[in-house]
Amino acid sequence: MSTIEVCLVPELYQYRKTAGNNHIAVVVDILRATTTIVIAVAQGVQKIIPVTDMNKLSEFKKNGYLIVSERDGLQSDFADFGNSPLQLINANIKNAAIAISTTNGTRALSVVNAADKILIGAFVNISALCSTLRTLNQNIVIVCSGWKYRFSLEDTLFAGAVCENLTGDNQFAGNDDSVIASMELWKQAKNDLLNYVSSSEHYQRLYSLGVGESVPYCFELDSYPVVPVLEGGTILNYSHH
Amino acid sequence: MSTIEVCLVPELYQYRKTAGNNHIAVVVDILRATTTIVIAVAQGVQKIIPVTDMNKLSEFKKNGYLIVSERDGLQSDFADFGNSPLQLINANIKNAAIAISTTNGTRALSVVNAADKILIGAFVNISALCSTLRTLNQNIVIVCSGWKYRFSLEDTLFAGAVCENLTGDNQFAGNDDSVIASMELWKQAKNDLLNYVSSSEHYQRLYSLGVGESVPYCFELDSYPVVPVLEGGTILNYSHH
Repeated sequence: MSTIEVCLVPELYQYRKTAGNNHIAVVVDILRATTTIVIAVAQGVQKIIPVTDMNKLSEFKKNGYLIVSERDGLQSDFADFGNSPLQLINANIKNAAIAISTTNGTRALSVVNAADKILIGAFVNISALCSTLRTLNQNIVIVCSGWKYRFSLEDTLFAGAVCENLTGDNQFAGNDDSVIASMELWKQAKNDLLNYVSSSEHYQRLYSLGVGESVPYCFELDSYPVVPVLEGGTILNYSHH
Repeated sequence: MSTIEVCLVPELYQYRKTAGNNHIAVVVDILRATTTIVIAVAQGVQKIIPVTDMNKLSEFKKNGYLIVSERDGLQSDFADFGNSPLQLINANIKNAAIAISTTNGTRALSVVNAADKILIGAFVNISALCSTLRTLNQNIVIVCSGWKYRFSLEDTLFAGAVCENLTGDNQFAGNDDSVIASMELWKQAKNDLLNYVSSSEHYQRLYSLGVGESVPYCFELDSYPVVPVLEGGTILNYSHH
């Protein structure tokens, strides 16, 4: 039986229980980087390059990339978009090349380098993601982006939802306590998800910064059923590759 | 209002939100180090020295200390006790000097060095601990020991129980998502605690190693109402100091 494990923040990936590199890392940053990435891929972008060092974005801009950049919740001055799913839903970005740098999500994408395959998850693509994971049938490590090295409720709820889906019929076995905890939290949240997360730290932060308008879109299940994959530094649509 | 924060593993203490050193760290390792320490202090030991490096224990033994030592759940050869609350409940250790080294708990005690005060918590002293924390009325960081850098359910449930107690009447304000999550988990667990944790990783490990006999004692609330404090490398009874 394949196993599934949850790292509650990216820093814990290095201490994961899943041995070797024969595993799939699923990176999640519900508010908002991985939601943004899923929506951009669904809109038919050519490719997305995640960039940890914001200073390198100007080079991408010169080379014709559209820039998605955010720090501490707010759009960077020079960026075309500010890590807002809503901006990308309404933009004409078909075939565009995008470079993205965010507070937490792009860092999480950079730490999972031991994985055999890196998939990108969010509530907006959860069923498509789970279906792909079932087909691949490898061990899974879900990596929550959190907020500045700290635990985030919304990423953990997503991990719990994936674990519930995949362990339900025993194709996958949870192999640590964070799987138990995330599923227990998801069980409490799932019937009123948006309300459940409304007291969480980053939900509150985004609304207080005046950029909360895209938050509800981040909790709509299966609205963009594509699975992005990160390969050789580039994010593509997994079904096209 | 004072704040309360939860670090789900010791490695996250360095990234805590609580600023400065004007805070109390509460270290918890329910299975079993902090339960063992609380019971030893309640039995009237003179002092306990937590020792991270197991190789240094022989020096303590030569100097007349009783040795509590465990790795991966099992008692070390040269030790007098094996991190088993049950052994200490039944031992005559009044006025003894003890040196203790365990897989996770003593490491957690060593990372909280930025704190103004370090208290030791477990279910067996939870009400006494909360009462002391209310009197001190400083910001609090609860540090869960976990298991080898990974999340543990039982430590998180304890953190949730303390947060519920202290935030209930608004003397303390929770200030991050791990407070929310740990309280939600505690809410589900508290009416049938031992059953709730029975699927957890370390509970299962202790029983499969044949050393589960002390586990139920670790979930008895308030059976040893003393509060150990770590000061200058030595654990003492806080009410005596």
